[in-house]
Amino acid sequence: MATPLSTPGPTLGVVGGGQLGRMLAEAAGPLGIELVVLDPTPECPASPVCRDQIVGEFDDDEAVRELAERSDFLTFEIELADPELLERVQEETGVPVHPSPDTLRMIQDKLVQKDALTDAGIPVPEYRAVDDADELRDALDELGSPAMVKAREGGYDGRGNAPIESPEDAEAVLDEIGGAAMVEAFVEYERELSVIGVKGADGVATFPAGENVHREEILRETVVPARADEDVRRRAQEVATDVLELMDGRGVYGIELFQGPDDEILVNEIAPRPHNSGHWTIEGAVTSQFEQHVRAVTGRPLGATDRRSPTVMTNLLGDVEETQPAALRGVEEILGTSRAALHWYGKRDARPLRKMGHVTLTGADDADVEDLLARVRGLRDSATFVGQD
Amino acid sequence: MATPLSTPGPTLGVVGGGQLGRMLAEAAGPLGIELVVLDPTPECPASPVCRDQIVGEFDDDEAVRELAERSDFLTFEIELADPELLERVQEETGVPVHPSPDTLRMIQDKLVQKDALTDAGIPVPEYRAVDDADELRDALDELGSPAMVKAREGGYDGRGNAPIESPEDAEAVLDEIGGAAMVEAFVEYERELSVIGVKGADGVATFPAGENVHREEILRETVVPARADEDVRRRAQEVATDVLELMDGRGVYGIELFQGPDDEILVNEIAPRPHNSGHWTIEGAVTSQFEQHVRAVTGRPLGATDRRSPTVMTNLLGDVEETQPAALRGVEEILGTSRAALHWYGKRDARPLRKMGHVTLTGADDADVEDLLARVRGLRDSATFVGQD
Repeated sequence: MATPLSTPGPTLGVVGGGQLGRMLAEAAGPLGIELVVLDPTPECPASPVCRDQIVGEFDDDEAVRELAERSDFLTFEIELADPELLERVQEETGVPVHPSPDTLRMIQDKLVQKDALTDAGIPVPEYRAVDDADELRDALDELGSPAMVKAREGGYDGRGNAPIESPEDAEAVLDEIGGAAMVEAFVEYERELSVIGVKGADGVATFPAGENVHREEILRETVVPARADEDVRRRAQEVATDVLELMDGRGVYGIELFQGPDDEILVNEIAPRPHNSGHWTIEGAVTSQFEQHVRAVTGRPLGATDRRSPTVMTNLLGDVEETQPAALRGVEEILGTSRAALHWYGKRDARPLRKMGHVTLTGADDADVEDLLARVRGLRDSATFVGQD
Repeated sequence: MATPLSTPGPTLGVVGGGQLGRMLAEAAGPLGIELVVLDPTPECPASPVCRDQIVGEFDDDEAVRELAERSDFLTFEIELADPELLERVQEETGVPVHPSPDTLRMIQDKLVQKDALTDAGIPVPEYRAVDDADELRDALDELGSPAMVKAREGGYDGRGNAPIESPEDAEAVLDEIGGAAMVEAFVEYERELSVIGVKGADGVATFPAGENVHREEILRETVVPARADEDVRRRAQEVATDVLELMDGRGVYGIELFQGPDDEILVNEIAPRPHNSGHWTIEGAVTSQFEQHVRAVTGRPLGATDRRSPTVMTNLLGDVEETQPAALRGVEEILGTSRAALHWYGKRDARPLRKMGHVTLTGADDADVEDLLARVRGLRDSATFVGQD
């Protein structure tokens, strides 16, 4: 940047003020960058740690315009951002949006995303667009059953995904999806990996590959380094680099991968923003994914992506039966454990399986990640939203 | 804590919202603790990253009361806080103040501080109270000249300190000090060290000793580990532990030391708060001094104080001739250097030698701190408030 670092600002406007916005604000402060977020929920997670929250819907024309007017740069931390609106506001105000609205639009539609990857020669699981039950049955003839039917738009954390066991269920599964759909072959994967990548003004960089443990399609833990051979981990970073080259606009991208049969690396999904599977970077890497995103979007040089030490991360999910005010008990064990770091997102209510916070545990250079993983699971299980003092 | 972690809060009220308050807020967010600060300067450094700023003087009765009413715990990040007022508010509202107002009062008066240390058998440079020029001359007879005359109250960053070369200058030097004074023997020290200590609900802990480089009595750099023998560094931590035992109330204490003749460790001064010489802990230690202070004051378990890697810190001081709007040029080199971290305090104006930010550089486990120090000085010198693009 030719512009000097002065106060106040520069200001980064963020569509979305959830935990990702909160951690972006926590990373931006030391760099001298102020955050303003747009979020419909008053007192959203980012609000107590950022300059200001504009309360409004992600697709509220006036609110996004106000955000742009208060900002030097615009970004988003949620795929529900509106690419058309962002494009218009970018044109009218001259405030740059990163990643580009085009990239957001491409990623929002999983079919278009997969087509773009395929066109670029990047390996993905076999897939077909399916507009009706007949097409779905035809696709299953080719891809085999079971398979995974996905809503083309709007899904996250497993919502919008439905496994299909047999062609007979085609109507029922498409009803469940309830909109434009695609179907993907089931991959008999060895493990799920993810690589956090970043595209800056002067090039791209990738963090070391993490291994993700999902349950009920929600990320539970990330293990770094992934428990895969070194050449598999390196190949994951290479594929992620190819993905980054394809993306338009600066910023962090979360790239979910399968380590398939014969150690083939396949791209599962891309998120055009910091990703849950990159939370480990806050303590585990030289630069966090949140600082990288702030650096990239504001056109600053990228930081180093080296891993500092073996690191595991576990989400703290709402272990409640129904929505209740958030009250987490048992954090003393987490806080009392050396090299364990607590991250609390400040959400008012705990809901079943809602992401409420996370815990990261780093080890010495020669630490065994199996041991770290067992320990961090124990820490997580010591904390609960259930019960009373 | 028996109380669960819920949202919003708990809230930590902080008297003072300068860079220390800002870095406290940055550390409190992940722990789920919200900060409200009291500071007379609108848009103080902490304000864009904390829940709220109350604009008011540190000794404004009503403002401190309002702060208490919004808080579950009270602390201060500046010695100018008013111990009598804090004591009254603590009694009337029941909101605990840490460190204790008594400790603050004791530390505010350098003579009382030195007396307390001496009474506890903690080694300090020789000193005398001096109420007038005759007493100062008598003291110099005993302590020798040159010596250092200090205002008992209100000094910081060298303000309130005046060297005296000869007994003839007694009147002039006391005029310069302008209030109650003391005089200290000059210590022919090998180096200046400091140890950041923390007193928690369940005990005390110390970070590894850093070595401080001052110029014009303002801290320029901290080097960790200090370039002293291991037994000297260990002795520094032992003396700091003795100091912590003497303190009343939880929190972080910055303990400045001299490594004197024969490697004796002498206590120079104590700050009842996070300290500039502990900024290295943000990247260089497992837990930062700011997180430790938040943990301690709110009664949570302390974190580990281990050093992560060799680390050097340099202040970014206002290199201007007179006050001007803050506009720092040349941060690209800092941001483009692996393992260099920029911390910007968000002050509106650069003033001569004002602390505007700092840069921390960490090295690999076997890094040479001399090399790190040379590199971080180069980074610092690449940035300037002078000139225009």
